[in-house]
Order: sequence, then structure tokens, then C-alpha cells
Amino acid sequence: MKNRQVLLRHTVTGRPTPEDFTVSESVAPEAREGEVLVKTLYLSLDPYMGSAIKGRHMSGAVAPGGVMPGETIGRVVQSRHAKFREGDLVQTRAGWQEYAIAVAPDPHASGMAAAISRAAHPLAAAAHVPLSAYLGVLGMPGLTAYAGTLTCLEPKPGENIVTSAAAGAVGSALGQIARNMGARAIGLAGSEAKCAHVVQRFGFAACINYKKPGWQDALAAACPGGVHGYSDNSGGAVLEGVVNVLAPGGRIMLIGLMDQYNTSERLPGPALGPFIGKRARVTGFVVYDHYARLGEWRRLGATWMGEGRLAFHEERIDGLAKAPDAFSRLMAGETMGKLIVAVARE
Amino acid sequence: MKNRQVLLRHTVTGRPTPEDFTVSESVAPEAREGEVLVKTLYLSLDPYMGSAIKGRHMSGAVAPGGVMPGETIGRVVQSRHAKFREGDLVQTRAGWQEYAIAVAPDPHASGMAAAISRAAHPLAAAAHVPLSAYLGVLGMPGLTAYAGTLTCLEPKPGENIVTSAAAGAVGSALGQIARNMGARAIGLAGSEAKCAHVVQRFGFAACINYKKPGWQDALAAACPGGVHGYSDNSGGAVLEGVVNVLAPGGRIMLIGLMDQYNTSERLPGPALGPFIGKRARVTGFVVYDHYARLGEWRRLGATWMGEGRLAFHEERIDGLAKAPDAFSRLMAGETMGKLIVAVARE
Repeated sequence: MKNRQVLLRHTVTGRPTPEDFTVSESVAPEAREGEVLVKTLYLSLDPYMGSAIKGRHMSGAVAPGGVMPGETIGRVVQSRHAKFREGDLVQTRAGWQEYAIAVAPDPHASGMAAAISRAAHPLAAAAHVPLSAYLGVLGMPGLTAYAGTLTCLEPKPGENIVTSAAAGAVGSALGQIARNMGARAIGLAGSEAKCAHVVQRFGFAACINYKKPGWQDALAAACPGGVHGYSDNSGGAVLEGVVNVLAPGGRIMLIGLMDQYNTSERLPGPALGPFIGKRARVTGFVVYDHYARLGEWRRLGATWMGEGRLAFHEERIDGLAKAPDAFSRLMAGETMGKLIVAVARE
Repeated sequence: MKNRQVLLRHTVTGRPTPEDFTVSESVAPEAREGEVLVKTLYLSLDPYMGSAIKGRHMSGAVAPGGVMPGETIGRVVQSRHAKFREGDLVQTRAGWQEYAIAVAPDPHASGMAAAISRAAHPLAAAAHVPLSAYLGVLGMPGLTAYAGTLTCLEPKPGENIVTSAAAGAVGSALGQIARNMGARAIGLAGSEAKCAHVVQRFGFAACINYKKPGWQDALAAACPGGVHGYSDNSGGAVLEGVVNVLAPGGRIMLIGLMDQYNTSERLPGPALGPFIGKRARVTGFVVYDHYARLGEWRRLGATWMGEGRLAFHEERIDGLAKAPDAFSRLMAGETMGKLIVAVARE
């Protein structure tokens, strides 16, 4: 049985082209004890692969000459595992090939190890749902939209929830999820046709073409009160633009770096890869919001000071005339501790 | 009565020097009905002023020729307000001058408007606390450390809580607060002397000199399990370095942009000003962490699809051989919706 495969020709540096890949044919493998042979029905193509072929995605690099990875839905055509029978529908990560060996899921694997393993998961498809939807809206992109909305965006009824790539698999699901939870869904997309599609097919309240000058003003107009939640897969200029119209305390969820997948150079602006990889939660803090707690802190801090559990260090300058020099040293990092000007005697 | 004042000579572009300021003398004003005249005892010098003199801090720009702003502790020397008597200790924002007019706090003001107003707040100082401490560890910098730790860093016992500028007013308080809450306090500072001071005087578990090559490795070694919480006032290279040793799900609190206060050029790397100004909460999201919810989402999503409340759109490609071209179009933003390769017939 021949097995058509798509191989990566070489590590890619810029935007991928068809020439970066080779279509080759080999002989399909045989399942050994404990394995199954799966015939691929549907293969999902996703933006993260653009990072993997550059050797810098957390799911692993694709080696030159290697089979391109990817999520698939397939049918078991040969089983040497008690849990599977021929004809079973499974979801696996066969990659860009017609046949692949899979194993039973490791019950101890979790997180990324489980997600990117070559395990086959039985798929019980609902009668009214097309099989391929289990790779999209009910697969990894849909789960990204769902879990991200619940854990990062936390939309409240009436809030403006914005998504980049609104016509895409994640964005189109995310807006609908937010809308079904009572929020207003607003999309960003890269063409008028995509924007029309987002409003008409996915029922977003509005969709803004971010390639059109003035898009930030249009976004602000579509979001009275500001953007309360934003799902970003750009990692670049679109993110920076949305931050400018964020509502105070707005939530941003970083899920991808589309702007950086196509370049090997570092973009100006946020270097966000590590923030995503670390699942960082970054919060902008402004002390002016917290003055109601000043009395509480002064009581606790004074108590701790009395107990010897809170020390402080001051650098004291005598006389106002020395303030400019002291301040200049502060900004040069040459002072130590709290800088205080003693202007007059107590 | 003469009133010495420090004025800003001109809007500053680089690192401030004493020549950017003028010390001048005027006649102290008289309090009018409803006002008090306050004699400054202590003036606080803080890094945010470096941003204000460039005209880009949220508390307002300092106009050329204007009196430098700043938090002060003073004594009422003339009162024409029923709530204040001569000799009362107050905290106000007299700025860099010996005498200033203040008013009673506006009970309706809150947030930044209240924090930066020219209101005088009666100060009931504890007997064992020096007055000037109410500008530092028990003032705005201390409140920044306290409220930020509670609302952004949320340290758990045993966690590694790291602060930049650990010898400074905010950092030294923050580490001690985290330690008093059961966490391990680790500092970053810009010299060996500062680091020794942070450990000896403030009782941090460790302090790393970020100007020394290899500081990231030293930080990683000082933080087994990674950095769980990080308070950043750099907005630049130190932030990027700490993110690399962040524990998964680590919390970062952005409180200042010291690296940017001294320059008028945009630094490479994160442009974080708007994130702080908007109090943004940014979360890095990785779907691999959420596969336990896949079943939950598939049930809900399939139900919504049956009800017509969840649409999806696929672009289907027939045959594996067309995958490279389809993927290249995906990365160029030329596809619409979920891209699926139909590899074989169902």
C-alpha cells in the first residue's frame, strides 16, 4: 500500500511557499503489536505550523526531510490493539500523510505531551456535525476559543469582546462563544470580504478591516466603553492598536504570533513569544487606583515596623536647592533606597 | 515670607541633569477662604517624575517654567479652613517648593484625580515611625508594593517573588511584604553594593546584580521552580530576561518604565506604556493546557450547532498534494475560515 507524504524540504526562513515542501511516496507501514494503522480522512492546516517549520514552536521543530506534523481525523484500517477495531473513527496526529501508525493514549500523559503525542483517540461524532468540524470548530481551534474565553477573557454580558483573525477558525468560534455568553462580538479581519463574512455568517456585531487606514477609530466607534476583552494572534501592530482602545482593566489573551511566523527578523514592539510560552499573566498596575487601601497598608506596615519585620532605607538630601542634583542621580540609578529631600526642620 | 521653588527649565529629552532645573525665589502666597498654607518638611523624589518632565506621564506633564510636582509632608502654617489648625501635620502634593497652598480633599474625587490633587490630608503619624517614612515605605511607593502584591502577584507560601530595583523604595518594601506573607523574596539590583544591602538590610533570600553577565543563570539558580511573581519597573531588558525564567503561569506586574524614562527613543522590545496605562491584564494562552476540557466543549459546541448558534466555515482542499500550496496561502492570509485537507473519502 503506497503512502503519500508531504515532507519539509528545509528549515524555512520567510513566508512559506509550495517549493519549501516535497510530495513523496513510500510504502505504508504495518501495525506492530499494540499499534494501529490509521488512514487519514481529514488533515487540519493551522497557523502554528508556520512557526514549527522555522524550528521555533513549542510543539517541536520539523526536521528538514521530515513529515509535516498535523492533526487528523482517520479510520483504523489495521488494528493490533485490543481497544481498536478496523473501521473505528479516530482523531490523531498523523501529519501530512495518507497513512500513519498510532498507539493508544498514555493515561499518564497530560498537557502538551498528551496533545502532541501520536496517540489515537476514538471519535464519537454527533450525527449533525460533519467529521471535519472535529478538527476545527470542535477541535483544537475551537478549544482554544472556548477555554481561552473562559480562563482569560471572562466576558460579562454587554462587554465588547474583540478577536483578531475573526474569519479564521479560532476567531470565528471565539466571537460566537462570547456572543452566546451575552457579550458583543467584534471582529478584526484583513479584507472587506472577510469582514462581511464575519458579520453575515458568524453574527458578529461588527467587523473592522485592520488594513484600512483609520481602523483604530472604527474599532473605538464599534466598542462603546472600550475593548473589554481581546484575543490576539498577531503579536504585532494589530495588538498595539487594540491596546490603545482597551477599556481600563481590559483583558488580553495572547494566542499566536502570526506577524512573526512569516519573518525571521525580530519585529519592533512586543517580543511576546516567551510570554505565551510561559503562560504569563501580566498586569498593568497604577497605584492611583488603590488609594482606598492606603490606611490599611499604613496600619499593617507600621505594625510590621514595630515588630522589626519591615525595614526601609532613605537617602536624605538637606535643602530644596539640592533636589535637581539628587533627582538626576536617582534617574541615573546612583541613589539607594527612598530619596527624600528634607526641606525644613520638623 | 520668601518661597524657594524648583522650576523645570524646559521639557527634557534624555537623562535629566541639574541644568534642566532652576532654583528661584518668590513670595509665599497667602491662604484664602477655604485654603491652608503648608510649609514643606519633606519632599519625595520618585522615578515617575522622570516621565512627567518628558511630558508623557499619566499624572500630567510639567510645563516649562512650572514648579516641579511631588508628594510632600508639611505643617499647616496658616489656616482659613475649619478642618485645619496651624501646626497640623498634613500630607499633600506641594511639589518642589517650601510653601504651598492646599485645600480640603474633595469627598467626591477618587482614583488618579484624588491622588494627584492639591488636597491636604491630615497625617496621624505613629510614634515609632519617622515622618518621612510616610512618603516612602508607608506612602505611595509602599502602597504600590502592597496593593500590587495583593492584586497582581498573589504570592503563595514558598513561591519565588522577584522584584526589580530591589534596593529602591518600591522594591525593598515589596520583597519584605512577600516574605512576610510566606514567599521567598529575590531581588534584582544594579550593583554589588545594592545587592548586599538588599540581603542584609531587607532580609531578601537573594539579590542578583543584573549588570553582571550571566545574571539570568544566577536568577534561575536563586529561584528553584522558576519565578512565580515578578514586579517590573524596567520595561526593558531586565523584563525580557526574567520572562525567560518565569515559572509556568507566573504573574508579572508592570509598574514602571525606568529604561524608557531616560530616553526619547523607542526601545526595542515591549512597548509597555499603554499596557500600564490601561491596567491591562495580559495572559499567555496555550491550548495544550486545556485538553481536559475538550469533551465539555464538544458537547456544548455540538448543542449550539444543533440550535443554529454556532456556525463554522471551512475551506476544503482535495488531496494531500495540494497541502503545500494551501498552507502557503494560509500563511499569506489568503484563505478563509478553517483550512481542511480532505485526504481520502469518508
